[in-house]
Amino acid sequence: MRAVKRVLIPLAQGCEELEAVTIIDLLRRAKIEVVTAGLDGKTVTASRGVRLIPDIDLDTALGQDFDMIVLPGGLPGAEHLDNDPRIKTLLKKMANDEKYTAAICAAPKVLANAGVLSGKKATSYPGFLENLDLPDTELKTDAVVIDGNVITSRGPGTAMDFALALIESLDGKDKRDEVEKALVRN
Amino acid sequence: MRAVKRVLIPLAQGCEELEAVTIIDLLRRAKIEVVTAGLDGKTVTASRGVRLIPDIDLDTALGQDFDMIVLPGGLPGAEHLDNDPRIKTLLKKMANDEKYTAAICAAPKVLANAGVLSGKKATSYPGFLENLDLPDTELKTDAVVIDGNVITSRGPGTAMDFALALIESLDGKDKRDEVEKALVRN
Repeated sequence: MRAVKRVLIPLAQGCEELEAVTIIDLLRRAKIEVVTAGLDGKTVTASRGVRLIPDIDLDTALGQDFDMIVLPGGLPGAEHLDNDPRIKTLLKKMANDEKYTAAICAAPKVLANAGVLSGKKATSYPGFLENLDLPDTELKTDAVVIDGNVITSRGPGTAMDFALALIESLDGKDKRDEVEKALVRN
Repeated sequence: MRAVKRVLIPLAQGCEELEAVTIIDLLRRAKIEVVTAGLDGKTVTASRGVRLIPDIDLDTALGQDFDMIVLPGGLPGAEHLDNDPRIKTLLKKMANDEKYTAAICAAPKVLANAGVLSGKKATSYPGFLENLDLPDTELKTDAVVIDGNVITSRGPGTAMDFALALIESLDGKDKRDEVEKALVRN
């Protein structure tokens, strides 16, 4: 992997803005290069109406290299990710290349439907993975579940722990601790 | 107060995006009407580069009624708020009218400089209030400090507790508990 890690965060219409922004913010605090990519070339109106301008569009992102892809949750955001064949192809390719794939809240379903959770432990917002037919995925209720290169989490309330776990996986515990300390979690 | 509460969140260039978006998101989950207002009529580039489009501009917001104003932190965002005479005038007016004034991270300094923290308990990101001359403000290190109509908090790591405290102050503990439960804090 390159010295400065690169992370792709696709931003779909109706994504969960708290989750998306917490992940972007914390990874950038860790000096990780974060690229946000819109699916449709438009301003993103997130699930609670916050309007976000992505850095680039997804087609441009597909021509670049990333060490990790992180999918924010939210509805209908996670459904848009699930229905986009570019996302599915990219997830399979990144998993095959032993890059990190990560998702939170409703979005672990997108990993499942791309086959990335096969043989893995994983979690999601309550109900999202339980409702799928996943005979070889071990469902957990931990805030964050790390199984090799696959990292999943539960919801807005676990987004900060999730982002910190992503930092630790990419750049180690010292970097995670440095970022966490500055957040003042009390 | 009106049945549906209205909350103004000014968004300055360089505001802390995680704090801003956590507050907007959670208050909207509680069905509180949140209006974000830009200071300069432009897209807001937040402290870690997230680009946000405010709902309206601050001059428009000044002609409307709000039950609460909430100032996100971040630098240079909080400095821009501190240097804007419209914000200072609005804070004094809302405090005089016994409306809520609230701030997190670097932004309680803006409340202090508007005179709103006089005779109050308050907190901020470590160092921000301590460095000011505030003989009649009692500085605390709690995650969230509520003193009458003035609510302050510490930083990104306390933004979720802060937003939940704002909901409880405006709409009661049942509404706070309902929103908190859906976040899945584990």
